[in-house]
Amino acid sequence: MFQRFTDSDIQKLGKRYKTNLINSISGFKSLQLVGTLSENGEPNLAVFNSIFHLGANPPLIGMVIRPEGNDHSTLKNIIATEFYTLNNVTESFYKQAHQTSARYLSGESEFEKCNLNEHYVGDFKAPFVAQSSIKIGLALRQLLPVELNGTTIVIGEIQLIEIDDSLLAEDGFIDLSMAGSLTVAGLDAYYSTSPLSRLTYAKPGTEPQELPKIIQH
Amino acid sequence: MFQRFTDSDIQKLGKRYKTNLINSISGFKSLQLVGTLSENGEPNLAVFNSIFHLGANPPLIGMVIRPEGNDHSTLKNIIATEFYTLNNVTESFYKQAHQTSARYLSGESEFEKCNLNEHYVGDFKAPFVAQSSIKIGLALRQLLPVELNGTTIVIGEIQLIEIDDSLLAEDGFIDLSMAGSLTVAGLDAYYSTSPLSRLTYAKPGTEPQELPKIIQH
Repeated sequence: MFQRFTDSDIQKLGKRYKTNLINSISGFKSLQLVGTLSENGEPNLAVFNSIFHLGANPPLIGMVIRPEGNDHSTLKNIIATEFYTLNNVTESFYKQAHQTSARYLSGESEFEKCNLNEHYVGDFKAPFVAQSSIKIGLALRQLLPVELNGTTIVIGEIQLIEIDDSLLAEDGFIDLSMAGSLTVAGLDAYYSTSPLSRLTYAKPGTEPQELPKIIQH
Repeated sequence: MFQRFTDSDIQKLGKRYKTNLINSISGFKSLQLVGTLSENGEPNLAVFNSIFHLGANPPLIGMVIRPEGNDHSTLKNIIATEFYTLNNVTESFYKQAHQTSARYLSGESEFEKCNLNEHYVGDFKAPFVAQSSIKIGLALRQLLPVELNGTTIVIGEIQLIEIDDSLLAEDGFIDLSMAGSLTVAGLDAYYSTSPLSRLTYAKPGTEPQELPKIIQH
C-alpha cells in the first residue's frame, strides 16, 4: 500500500525518523573517504556521501559539508591547505571507513585509529588512502555557502588520479563495480553493485542499445 | 598496474575520453527522472544523475543542471512553475528512462515518446512517473549559479513523498535496493545493488556493528 507524506506530515516527523527518511530518499550516493592535512601537517580522514559530479571541463566535483561535527575539521583543513583527496571505499574496509565518522579527539588520526594507511603522491598536500582502488586529488576552487541550512558546498578541481589500468575502458569509462566501489543510502546502509549495461547515446526514433562488452573494458 | 593522470595529463585528454573518465570517477550517482510542466502545461521528463542530499531539516535536495541541451527545458519549467518531481528508476524501465535524454522536439512529451505514464497527485504542479516506486515532489527554494562552468545548482524542498509502505523501515530508512532503485556511473552505465549491511553509529573505541535485520525492515 502506498504511503503519502505531505510537507506538514514531514515537518511533524520525529528528528531521527526524518533524518533517516530524507537522507535515504534522494537515492544512492557516492561513498568517499576525504583525506586532508591540518596546517600543522596532521592527517585527517572522514567519510562523506554528499559528493556529486559538477562538470568534466574543467573537471569539477562538489561536496556538501555540514556546519558541525567531524565535517568541520575537514573544511578547516581544506581552507588552510586548499587540497584534499577522495578515495573510494570497497567491501574489504567499509566498516573501517564508517568508523572514521566517530568523534576522535583533536590530534588523533583516523588513519591510525581505523587501520587505514596513508599514501602520499609526490608533493601533493593531502593524504590518499592506500587501500582505495580509485584515488583522486583535488584543489579547492570555490566555497558556496548555502544559507538555507548553513551547509557549505566545496567545489574542487581534479589535479591527480591514480587508478588501476584494468579498471579503465578504452573510452575513458571507469567500471566502479569492477573497482569494488560501494554505494551508500541514508546515513549507514552500504551496498555493492552489479552492472546491468552501458547504453548507447539516446536519439529520437531509435531505442537505446547495450554497448558491446568490448567497449566496456 | 597503476595509471597516474596529473592535471596536465587530464587537460590533454580527448573530449570524449575526458567526459567519460571524469563523469565516472566521482562514484555512483543517484538516478532520477525529473518531471516538470511548462508554463502552458506541457509535461517534460528528463533523466538526471547529479542529484545530492543537501540536508534533512529542512528537507533539501540539490541537482546540477548544465547550461545547454535537454537540461534547459527542465530548468526553464522549474523557474516558471517552481515545482518539480524526482522519480526513481528501476530495472524494468531503465532503458526508457535513458531514452528521455534524446533531443525530442519542443511540444513532444518524453512521457509519450518513451512509454512512461504521467501520474498526478492532488494539485501538485508537476507530473510524477507512475512506474516509479519512490516519488518525491519538490518546491524550488534557490538557484545557485556556478560561475566556474556555467552550471546551475537547483535546490528544492521536499513537499510530497509517495512510497510503498513495505519499503519503509521502522526508523524511517528506505531500502533503495528493495525499492529496485538503480544507480548510475558515468553517462550511460546502469547498476543494480545488493545490501551489505546497515552499521551502528560510530563511536571512538568501539567497532561498528551490523544493525539487526529487524531494524532494517
